Amino acid sequence: MTDTDYTRLFSKRAQGMKASEIRELLKITQNKEIISFAGGLPSPEAFPIEDVKNICNKVLDEDGANALQYCATEGVTKLREAIAQRMNNQGMDVTYKNILITTGAQQGLDLIGKTFLNTGDIVIVGAPTYLGGTNAFNSYMAKMESIPLDNEGMSPDLLEEKLNKLNLHGSNPKLLYIIPSFQNPSGVTLTQSRRKKILDIAHEYDVLIIEDNPYSKLRYDGKENSTIYSMDKENSTIYLGTFSKVLSPGLRIAWTIAPQQLMNKLIITKQASDLCTSTFGQYLAYEYLAQGLIDIHIEKIKDLYRKKRDTMLAALDKYFPQGATWTKPEGGMFIWVTLPEYIDTGQMIERAIENKVAYVIGAAFHADRSGKNCMRLNYTYSSIDKIDEGIRKLAMTIENEIEMHKKKDESPYKLDEDGLITGV
Amino acid sequence: MTDTDYTRLFSKRAQGMKASEIRELLKITQNKEIISFAGGLPSPEAFPIEDVKNICNKVLDEDGANALQYCATEGVTKLREAIAQRMNNQGMDVTYKNILITTGAQQGLDLIGKTFLNTGDIVIVGAPTYLGGTNAFNSYMAKMESIPLDNEGMSPDLLEEKLNKLNLHGSNPKLLYIIPSFQNPSGVTLTQSRRKKILDIAHEYDVLIIEDNPYSKLRYDGKENSTIYSMDKENSTIYLGTFSKVLSPGLRIAWTIAPQQLMNKLIITKQASDLCTSTFGQYLAYEYLAQGLIDIHIEKIKDLYRKKRDTMLAALDKYFPQGATWTKPEGGMFIWVTLPEYIDTGQMIERAIENKVAYVIGAAFHADRSGKNCMRLNYTYSSIDKIDEGIRKLAMTIENEIEMHKKKDESPYKLDEDGLITGV
Repeated sequence: MTDTDYTRLFSKRAQGMKASEIRELLKITQNKEIISFAGGLPSPEAFPIEDVKNICNKVLDEDGANALQYCATEGVTKLREAIAQRMNNQGMDVTYKNILITTGAQQGLDLIGKTFLNTGDIVIVGAPTYLGGTNAFNSYMAKMESIPLDNEGMSPDLLEEKLNKLNLHGSNPKLLYIIPSFQNPSGVTLTQSRRKKILDIAHEYDVLIIEDNPYSKLRYDGKENSTIYSMDKENSTIYLGTFSKVLSPGLRIAWTIAPQQLMNKLIITKQASDLCTSTFGQYLAYEYLAQGLIDIHIEKIKDLYRKKRDTMLAALDKYFPQGATWTKPEGGMFIWVTLPEYIDTGQMIERAIENKVAYVIGAAFHADRSGKNCMRLNYTYSSIDKIDEGIRKLAMTIENEIEMHKKKDESPYKLDEDGLITGV
Repeated sequence: MTDTDYTRLFSKRAQGMKASEIRELLKITQNKEIISFAGGLPSPEAFPIEDVKNICNKVLDEDGANALQYCATEGVTKLREAIAQRMNNQGMDVTYKNILITTGAQQGLDLIGKTFLNTGDIVIVGAPTYLGGTNAFNSYMAKMESIPLDNEGMSPDLLEEKLNKLNLHGSNPKLLYIIPSFQNPSGVTLTQSRRKKILDIAHEYDVLIIEDNPYSKLRYDGKENSTIYSMDKENSTIYLGTFSKVLSPGLRIAWTIAPQQLMNKLIITKQASDLCTSTFGQYLAYEYLAQGLIDIHIEKIKDLYRKKRDTMLAALDKYFPQGATWTKPEGGMFIWVTLPEYIDTGQMIERAIENKVAYVIGAAFHADRSGKNCMRLNYTYSSIDKIDEGIRKLAMTIENEIEMHKKKDESPYKLDEDGLITGV
């Protein structure tokens, strides 16, 4: 077949899908000389390797044949029960029947897209929002509508204004996508009172809330919030949780919690997607919960990440020039930096990489490609020393940018469509 | 939200998706008193538990931090290289860049659907064909066109006739879905000469071949065929392979092989689906290949399954009434039985279950719901003793059906929509 044949064969959705900028960036930053604040990787120091080894041996000795077999599409019952119990301890009221085990929370997002979205359906997202969420919804050719975030998360007033306006035009958004705690990419947390208000608005406008909550257990200061799912008395929320940030992302074990009537469809959708999630991985995750290892381990991760966050915040204070502002997250993995409006972080990234430091450009997290003067910094992956050094290098890059702006120079650098550097 | 709200929210594709009959059946057959020839499970005796344990320890000792981290969407490079080498030893000419690691081959089917199928696009399938394939394609609202199989697999003449007819009506099918060796559900193998002819036809009509090949290493007699991918000089084939039948389905590690130009889109599609397949599972599969364990283990499985196949064929000969015919597979996991036309295996299944034996009804494997007098029998899961006993019980059930037909009785049994028995 020729390239023309291939192009004819691609579906409309595939023609519209592009590789994520993060993915392209991660390739560049595999160069070990570069200090990468791109990516969203947990620290390799944060994996409980010895625990996993002990658990592997136990599972294979005691129940190897079942652990290596297919399992039901919805997941291994004892894991679903253990997750339900854990979630109920955190204020929910669910049974194992509300729990679907997924291959990472990304699959939960994909299954939600597949189950709910027709071409042109509207999904309300934050500005900025998680790229994996918009990618999943885009692959079902949905349309994103963005609500700006501030330091308290999504604004209920702006949300209501948007929904009202859309309704006047005859549009009824189907989904409202929210990462309530230590949001990716901004690091901000939706306040308790806003959670309540947003829930009321969602009820009023019959919008299903997708509550994506991978980070909430990684809280370094302040008080834990209630999940939206636990506050919702009208069964209008689907919740996504994961072991990726508190055990290992490489096991790809996550869960989706939904009201029973929605669960049945989600299970059928998952069946066509991958039959079931790794049974072995599920047995490992079960033992990790059942042996009470998870909470001990979370405390260790928190101590590690708190130090890293503090190091990055201190370095930002120390090195970054006037005119730059950033969020001060109480948990999670990311800090969001806003630079003077005339700086385009998409243009600046090549100079940053020349200076051996990387970040993700702000536009990647905006459905409308705004946020050009912003960037996301990850503080969990790099070592404490590298964090200080990397922020110093990044500050130097920004200062050069400011100097260049003062001289009103035109940049000789450009990114081509594939995110590769041209004109250098 | 009310059920009406939920129904409004479901996508068109989700409204059209139903739980597979196999899935519903598997629930019924979890009752341990029932001898189940339903399902497509490997024998639990066939899992190399000690090998997996040793490998787990090695991987976690030597490279635990990488094995528990995210990996690239396309998969772990050393595993992709090892698979490429193995496939080249079997006559292909690929590099690791042609290999995408997927979460089971079912995900490969889903990604193909997502990448190529618009609503109403045509996929050519066998009659019968694998339910997971049609489920994946249906979830992108494609239309199936069926080509009857005989003992040599899909007929090239009937295929060409169908393509010609569709072309005259202005329809250009996009995909041709083929399970060439020991097909699920029929057990038949596409002959070498038919492979060549079908490839030529696909080239002529610009149809992309999807070659789903999970069973080819499980050959108990006869000579191995060439894969269609290795015969295709025009880059018009996508190949699906898996570790599920030769290591463990519970690890969910499989691979898709595609020409480079298609691979890029498949990777982007996978990224939105689940970011990456279990890194840990991929490291285990890599060690299993690298240590040369796989071929030793395949010989063991073949000895085990050959005996089971022979036991079932002998029991069919011994117990089944006149008028029943069945395939004699040279490998794989399934035998396909055809009963007299007046017998509806969908009606008969409840009597079979009362008699403590289960199968999958033929209609489940036909896009047009024909094949009502057929059934699929799996011989790999049950023990040798149970195979003989189960076939005896099934023969008894069929004989009763024949008796009932002679008496022209109407059946008092019905299946409701959920596959549950009503009217008993």
